[in-house]
Amino acid sequence: MSKGFLLVLSGPSGSGKGTVSEALMKENDEIIYSTSITTRTPRPNEVDGENYFFRTIDEFETMVKNDELLEHAFVHTNYYGTPKEFVFNEIDKGEIVLLEIDVQGALQIKEKYKEAVFIFLLPPTMDELKSRIVKRGTESEEDINTRFSNAFKELDFVGEYDYFVVNAEVSQAVEDIENIIAAEKLRVKRHKDIKEKVMGKEKLN
Amino acid sequence: MSKGFLLVLSGPSGSGKGTVSEALMKENDEIIYSTSITTRTPRPNEVDGENYFFRTIDEFETMVKNDELLEHAFVHTNYYGTPKEFVFNEIDKGEIVLLEIDVQGALQIKEKYKEAVFIFLLPPTMDELKSRIVKRGTESEEDINTRFSNAFKELDFVGEYDYFVVNAEVSQAVEDIENIIAAEKLRVKRHKDIKEKVMGKEKLN
Repeated sequence: MSKGFLLVLSGPSGSGKGTVSEALMKENDEIIYSTSITTRTPRPNEVDGENYFFRTIDEFETMVKNDELLEHAFVHTNYYGTPKEFVFNEIDKGEIVLLEIDVQGALQIKEKYKEAVFIFLLPPTMDELKSRIVKRGTESEEDINTRFSNAFKELDFVGEYDYFVVNAEVSQAVEDIENIIAAEKLRVKRHKDIKEKVMGKEKLN
Repeated sequence: MSKGFLLVLSGPSGSGKGTVSEALMKENDEIIYSTSITTRTPRPNEVDGENYFFRTIDEFETMVKNDELLEHAFVHTNYYGTPKEFVFNEIDKGEIVLLEIDVQGALQIKEKYKEAVFIFLLPPTMDELKSRIVKRGTESEEDINTRFSNAFKELDFVGEYDYFVVNAEVSQAVEDIENIIAAEKLRVKRHKDIKEKVMGKEKLN
């Protein structure tokens, strides 16, 4: 059986990675969404192992120490991270695992696991990016300026990624990502026994 | 402007690379077929620079000496080769150049120009491959056996390629290749000025 892969969908704030990721999941039942670990308290409707893996700060810090995470970050008062075990188990089963993450997180993963497929989601223009950040309407002018200036700096890291997708229209961005997935499924490097399969009449893909 | 790329479609005899290549060209006007150089005499209806670049043996051997070919082979009494100049000019213009070639030729190109996109076309089974070779009906039993045994050996080189495509149905194989082309167009490595384009509002793809 062939291995699956980790699809890292990333981009600056305002690139629309949340929206694109949601639309992609909706249209592709077979994609598995990466479940994160967090130290924050579960909300009433949240289930451990579904929404998040809920862990104590001690447990989380032990995982960091033991290199059990692909990336992690401390946001406000809580840790968030991506567990290797969950991701690698699914990949070994042949699944495609989607992780939507900011640029800093993606760069951490690139260092630990460069076999992932890295997609950088771009706004069509910087004006459009700014207008998307402003439209959220939940932030002060200072916050907006910080986000915009960070987004601008983060564009420098596009060279670390495998693919770029321009999010002008969500449906087009989803189609681009679907094409990338279709192509990545045909990668020779993830199928180690192609000759044996052709000889043995086993179905290849 | 972004660079195009060379798409090397290759596979053993009986994999159907001629048929798939023809169907792919028919449905994708924008793909440019790589024009080969040959030392054989033009047939009455053949045009230099269209069907082939026709050259003398001296001219051809000078090109080999000057490393002006991506690959070449001596077949029966004539040389055939792929000129770098034609391919690289089209790629610089942003074009996708298709080269349909046997496994030996593809491996020569891999050594000289690993930036090409290498697709290995596979038969669904070895039985099907044998039946395709037999069905041509133009060869002696000895020739058929040689072809089949070569095809079997050539499968060992699939690991040198980027992608594999199973040619069970021509239409599916064409669709797989179209997906690969769509994905390869979104490769970051062929777009050196992504940040500038987003800032400058120039269209990215």
